[in-house]
Amino acid sequence: MTDRRPADTGMSLAEIDTPALLLDLDAFDRNVARMARAAADAGLALRPHAKTHKSPVIAQRQMAAGAVGVCCQTVNEAEALVQGGVGDVHLSNVMAGRRKAERLVALTRLARVSCCADSDHGVAELAQAACAVGVILPVLVEVDVGHGRCGVPPGEPAAELAARVADTEGVRFAGLQAYHGGAQHIRDHQARQDAIGQAANAVRRSLAALDRRSLSCPIVTGGGTGTFPFEAASGVFTELQPGSYIFMDADYARNRDETGGPFQAFEHSLFLWATVISTRPGERALLDVGHKAHGGDSGPFVVADHPNLIVQPAGDEHGTLVLGPDTPSFPVGTKLRLIPGHCDPTVNLYDWYVCLRNGQVAALWPVAARGPGP
Amino acid sequence: MTDRRPADTGMSLAEIDTPALLLDLDAFDRNVARMARAAADAGLALRPHAKTHKSPVIAQRQMAAGAVGVCCQTVNEAEALVQGGVGDVHLSNVMAGRRKAERLVALTRLARVSCCADSDHGVAELAQAACAVGVILPVLVEVDVGHGRCGVPPGEPAAELAARVADTEGVRFAGLQAYHGGAQHIRDHQARQDAIGQAANAVRRSLAALDRRSLSCPIVTGGGTGTFPFEAASGVFTELQPGSYIFMDADYARNRDETGGPFQAFEHSLFLWATVISTRPGERALLDVGHKAHGGDSGPFVVADHPNLIVQPAGDEHGTLVLGPDTPSFPVGTKLRLIPGHCDPTVNLYDWYVCLRNGQVAALWPVAARGPGP
Repeated sequence: MTDRRPADTGMSLAEIDTPALLLDLDAFDRNVARMARAAADAGLALRPHAKTHKSPVIAQRQMAAGAVGVCCQTVNEAEALVQGGVGDVHLSNVMAGRRKAERLVALTRLARVSCCADSDHGVAELAQAACAVGVILPVLVEVDVGHGRCGVPPGEPAAELAARVADTEGVRFAGLQAYHGGAQHIRDHQARQDAIGQAANAVRRSLAALDRRSLSCPIVTGGGTGTFPFEAASGVFTELQPGSYIFMDADYARNRDETGGPFQAFEHSLFLWATVISTRPGERALLDVGHKAHGGDSGPFVVADHPNLIVQPAGDEHGTLVLGPDTPSFPVGTKLRLIPGHCDPTVNLYDWYVCLRNGQVAALWPVAARGPGP
Repeated sequence: MTDRRPADTGMSLAEIDTPALLLDLDAFDRNVARMARAAADAGLALRPHAKTHKSPVIAQRQMAAGAVGVCCQTVNEAEALVQGGVGDVHLSNVMAGRRKAERLVALTRLARVSCCADSDHGVAELAQAACAVGVILPVLVEVDVGHGRCGVPPGEPAAELAARVADTEGVRFAGLQAYHGGAQHIRDHQARQDAIGQAANAVRRSLAALDRRSLSCPIVTGGGTGTFPFEAASGVFTELQPGSYIFMDADYARNRDETGGPFQAFEHSLFLWATVISTRPGERALLDVGHKAHGGDSGPFVVADHPNLIVQPAGDEHGTLVLGPDTPSFPVGTKLRLIPGHCDPTVNLYDWYVCLRNGQVAALWPVAARGPGP
């Protein structure tokens, strides 16, 4: 809401005031390239999730690296992406409300747009909005492949709703949305793999049911940063939807790889820049970042250059760094880079990315779709 | 960041799209009047905390009802308030950074502004910025009266820093900041009262130490929505700083009053407006509000018109309403008013208040200081 920019291009890191959301462009670029290569090697389309970044600039860079388009989760994200020049947006969520359907359909004038449904109500609302302006909206049926959130049950119910879509004017059946959000942060590699094995079986049952109705299914889309190699290997997915890989966060770093070591396929590129504002030597240092600076649903900040130290939110505007006997001192005025616990809701608190290259501010990218909507 | 307004004036509640932050103006006005009367009855100045609302419009209404000014917690809040016409702003927090001190001092051209310090570093930075433009900044010494966050220890250390302020060019000692954040949500009435009894003793020890140095202390400011009657009764506070009373939230409603019943001195006036987007009858309904729509550090949403039902965040864009055998059905498209768990960080997610009077949108008030800063 404030029109104030948090930094100017050319500033050094030390000059940037806090709290600020920092993006290390070198690490970010390497993450973007790594995922593009992984999807290409697997022969799958890559459609990264823009709910993580809410930024058409980042979406464009992902597409320049080979992504076919992006996903988003809300209509206001779809609008910000399309208005920012992104040409292919899939809303990987169900929604309700006539105005939302109308707004989504309006975007088909500018971009390839698709959406999900898991109910007759949802199909009808999308169809009505599409018919009103004479377009055909591609609709994917969302299948609950294990998360227990949205989505129809796999198998026959999925095929039944797909048939409903196929039979409804204004929409066409475009495929299956099969994302298992609950599997992304299962720590153990084998358990994570098993969860996606079950998700893939749920997709297979749904494909078989579609086949019995002679409904072709051009797209099966899903997968996230924690599980995408398993979806890729399953043979049933055509498209991957990872989001967090561009930034990583402290919570994804707690996942384990096949050796039992930390999941390190991607680098931390997103940081909070914070200042020590008060200190009680030997006990605690207080930083200027609390609940309003950090999406705290997945644990505390980790101090980037002292990975054994964490900062716990201590209210809305404060975070506590507990000092032990062996902890370095952090005098008032010290600035620290913190790794967020969960990147998506943290980004959603900021209006700007302060983008760094070679230790200097190279760009300010707006978090164009910030906020929960409508 | 999005320039889109979430509603238009004159709309009915049913027409407002979701998620939206609703403010019931009748309940809000009653809360504002109740706290103004409580402070007046106690003979204390009222300086409500604007970190709760981040809105100069709301600050002006609080002052029109009798408040002497408002508190804020960050420089960007102070800027938004002063630029919005608020004439008296106390930054009830310590800070660090030359640019922040300069920005705060610049506001003294437009409004009465004061600030806190708990370190020599803080005093020096504020003094330097004030001297550079030839003003005298009132500085309150923040005392740790039990929260264990910022603040110098009570008694002699408080007086020592006050003397430092008094002896430093560009700043003057204006009083003690003595807020006990940790006491606000102690559930039991007696235990909450005891915590503030100890805070008041810490203030008394500090006042005695100031007296020994012949330093007069015109202001002792503190208190919050959960404890203000105790600060008022202590005889040592001159000013109250409650914030959340204007909105209430589900967490404050879990405090107990002196009878052991729920704390009901104020009414819920702030709600999230959410839509059921998916449902599995008898099991769950999914709403379009998750981590990005709700400051979730103090528990789940409570359904306003079904106070025994809660909505747990189920990811960044989803909330789960668990349905039991006796729960009414909530078909797709149903809209519900939810009481946030914690009002301050929830407000911080939205760009606008959608203000309702007689069931219609009466105004849209910007959350002008949204965001963590800098």
